[in-house]
Amino acid sequence: MQEKGLLIVLSGPSGVGKGTVRKEIFSQPDLAFEYSISMTTRAPREGEVDGVDYFFKTREEFEKLIEEGKLLEYAEFVGNYYGTPVDYVQQTLDNGKDVFLEIEVQGARQVREKFPDGLFIFLVPPSLSELKNRIVTRGTETEDVINNRMSTARDEIEMMNLYDYVVENDQVERACERIKAIVVAEHCRRERVEPRYKKMLEVD
Amino acid sequence: MQEKGLLIVLSGPSGVGKGTVRKEIFSQPDLAFEYSISMTTRAPREGEVDGVDYFFKTREEFEKLIEEGKLLEYAEFVGNYYGTPVDYVQQTLDNGKDVFLEIEVQGARQVREKFPDGLFIFLVPPSLSELKNRIVTRGTETEDVINNRMSTARDEIEMMNLYDYVVENDQVERACERIKAIVVAEHCRRERVEPRYKKMLEVD
Repeated sequence: MQEKGLLIVLSGPSGVGKGTVRKEIFSQPDLAFEYSISMTTRAPREGEVDGVDYFFKTREEFEKLIEEGKLLEYAEFVGNYYGTPVDYVQQTLDNGKDVFLEIEVQGARQVREKFPDGLFIFLVPPSLSELKNRIVTRGTETEDVINNRMSTARDEIEMMNLYDYVVENDQVERACERIKAIVVAEHCRRERVEPRYKKMLEVD
Repeated sequence: MQEKGLLIVLSGPSGVGKGTVRKEIFSQPDLAFEYSISMTTRAPREGEVDGVDYFFKTREEFEKLIEEGKLLEYAEFVGNYYGTPVDYVQQTLDNGKDVFLEIEVQGARQVREKFPDGLFIFLVPPSLSELKNRIVTRGTETEDVINNRMSTARDEIEMMNLYDYVVENDQVERACERIKAIVVAEHCRRERVEPRYKKMLEVD
């Protein structure tokens, strides 16, 4: 009985540092999960390699993949498409390996619908953690700035709702450690482990 | 707003090595949780220190504590009482620190009733893991031995039902790493984190 891999989705508000955390995680040699490379129609930036940083596609190619249902999730930003090819994710999971996605919140919402028992991690911006630690020092900020912050914080907290875990990005290394711990822990969750044992007893 | 600590309960079938794993965890310097020392009426063994290994009590003292509701859980084994003093646990949790209990399965059941949102970890004996890995090599064991094993395994799997996590004790160090990861992850669970953020916004 081949055990399926875990779909790990890292997301969070834009500017939170998802990409930095993801790069740090994948720079570590002892990692037991696979990174799912995104697809985009934007032009490669200097140093970016096709099939490493992104799969670079034309608009026509991308729209054909959308039509064919080949994308697990996708979204358009500033005139460019970004998305996750579904085949790689499905094959890797079927082979019993964990897959790691780093995507925007809209994309995460789409993935949740298709993989309800994926592992959804919300990266919290330092600004929200700071707010939590009450560093919003009154008197040093205008009321507008404070109201703006509070409104952004409200939106960010609203977004959390979809996720299983919330990780503060106070320090990249610490955020990575927490994410790795979450993956280890999730593999030990009774709901995931117990059916294997039960099945094993039936079979034997 | 003082955040409450997490109650961590390590249990599992007798002989699984709960005590060894607990000792290994508490031999590590970077630990962020407190061990709740058990109380017993059995005589101290050589080298055991009152207030370190156990709180040693007379039968009369122990029964008085039971009557006064001062025990979070207790059980009698081979004519001796073993139990967990509730005051230490409650005070430590109220102070925002995590408390770690290593107790028998009957005790864990009692604790679950009083602390439903505690973190319950079931340590799985290597024999069950081995069964999972199909090391029950046919032909080398009598049918009685195999049936016996299967029956024990069934009982052990039955016990898992109460727990949040299942950790294989294949190697003490690995079991400890998993338990520590579970505690880190649990502190990041959205259900635990989100109310703090929500409350913070109301307050500010």
